[in-house]
Amino acid sequence: MNRLYVIGIGPGDHENMTLKADRALRQCDLICGYHVYVDLIKDLYPGKEFLTTGMTKEADRCRMAIDAARGGKTTCMVCSGDSSIYGMAALIYELRGETDDPAIEVIPGLTAACSGGALLGAPLTHDFAVISLSDRLTEWSLIESRLTHAAQADLSMVLYNPASKSRPDHLKNACDILLRVLPEDRICGVARNIAREGEQAQLMTLGQLRTAHIDMFCTVFIGNSMTTVINGKMVTPRGYRNV
Amino acid sequence: MNRLYVIGIGPGDHENMTLKADRALRQCDLICGYHVYVDLIKDLYPGKEFLTTGMTKEADRCRMAIDAARGGKTTCMVCSGDSSIYGMAALIYELRGETDDPAIEVIPGLTAACSGGALLGAPLTHDFAVISLSDRLTEWSLIESRLTHAAQADLSMVLYNPASKSRPDHLKNACDILLRVLPEDRICGVARNIAREGEQAQLMTLGQLRTAHIDMFCTVFIGNSMTTVINGKMVTPRGYRNV
Repeated sequence: MNRLYVIGIGPGDHENMTLKADRALRQCDLICGYHVYVDLIKDLYPGKEFLTTGMTKEADRCRMAIDAARGGKTTCMVCSGDSSIYGMAALIYELRGETDDPAIEVIPGLTAACSGGALLGAPLTHDFAVISLSDRLTEWSLIESRLTHAAQADLSMVLYNPASKSRPDHLKNACDILLRVLPEDRICGVARNIAREGEQAQLMTLGQLRTAHIDMFCTVFIGNSMTTVINGKMVTPRGYRNV
Repeated sequence: MNRLYVIGIGPGDHENMTLKADRALRQCDLICGYHVYVDLIKDLYPGKEFLTTGMTKEADRCRMAIDAARGGKTTCMVCSGDSSIYGMAALIYELRGETDDPAIEVIPGLTAACSGGALLGAPLTHDFAVISLSDRLTEWSLIESRLTHAAQADLSMVLYNPASKSRPDHLKNACDILLRVLPEDRICGVARNIAREGEQAQLMTLGQLRTAHIDMFCTVFIGNSMTTVINGKMVTPRGYRNV
């Protein structure tokens, strides 16, 4: 049976990968993915064949992986973070279609909500929304609606893809939308280069976040109305102390 | 330095744990947690000391772990899923307060949004909300507001704690709230006993979910307007095929 594993490698270091992901990568023939993610793990799996593509070549990358698996090579398609949350698993299923060849196993990994949250403290102990600020595949009006509803529902938020070279003002615009509902002193956190060189955690208010220097290696956390700072950590209590 | 690790063990099997969580558990003196979660991993870490408490004893459990660490035992507090997302990390920070004793490291783990998503297919490839249906610590009116806003924003949803013996009708009530906004044929999925004995994935419509037999070992996924079924899997496309 031809096999394709769609693997979430987590934030990027070996330690934050699951045992299952590590085993699949050790046992496969071919590792396929966006070149930045493949470079993160290449040295850990010597002797493998590697196939990479550049940014925004998602469909090409997935077709290559499906074709390689159909050709008999046990193939791992690697995604940063989780393989399903903004990852390639859906596109792999779409492109494979109504057939079982190759057999697909989606191996989950730590998404930035988990790994970035741990770096900042414990910001997501209650209900939250995960929203990407990239409007490459999504109308900005829909992103705006999601931010507004999440703020009105007092959900904590994790903002993925908060900025890139082609959209330097997205986070500022998102903050302006949130500030229509939320106060300026709402606790926020920025996790940068999670589990990679240059790892950094910063806490700030929503007002300060609006003009903060944020790049594509950042994940942004917006607290809910209960979020507080304890000994330098961003903490959203669930209410266990009130029981 | 006294050390306390707050560890997300993932869904429950060894394979879905991270290398970092596994190493911390192997190297510690004492493993502390809710007895059901400790039982899941006890046999993997022979020779350790174990301290467990029953359900709803969260503050007792965390105080025990902090005290043990302050007494010089390198301690691991285990949480199912992630250590921060509905986990004990926030309460540990709250109870430690404004001191660095013990040193705390939060080690993230696979939350059910990741592990259950992988079991069902790829339901969370676009923006989503994570909402617990437990009203033990949260007013039902707030849960209702969050469900309504998430539906209005066309967010996919993951519902944690969808049912228990003391609240058998919560999921039915939640579906009734969602059905004010969403169509009856909205694609939904139920992941049961993820990575444990009796693991099961079921797809159904929102109308069917309303009367489905759901217990406390289930995590429920609600699709967004783009979610579809491909070869038996729940898939939410992100739109890469349209580029």
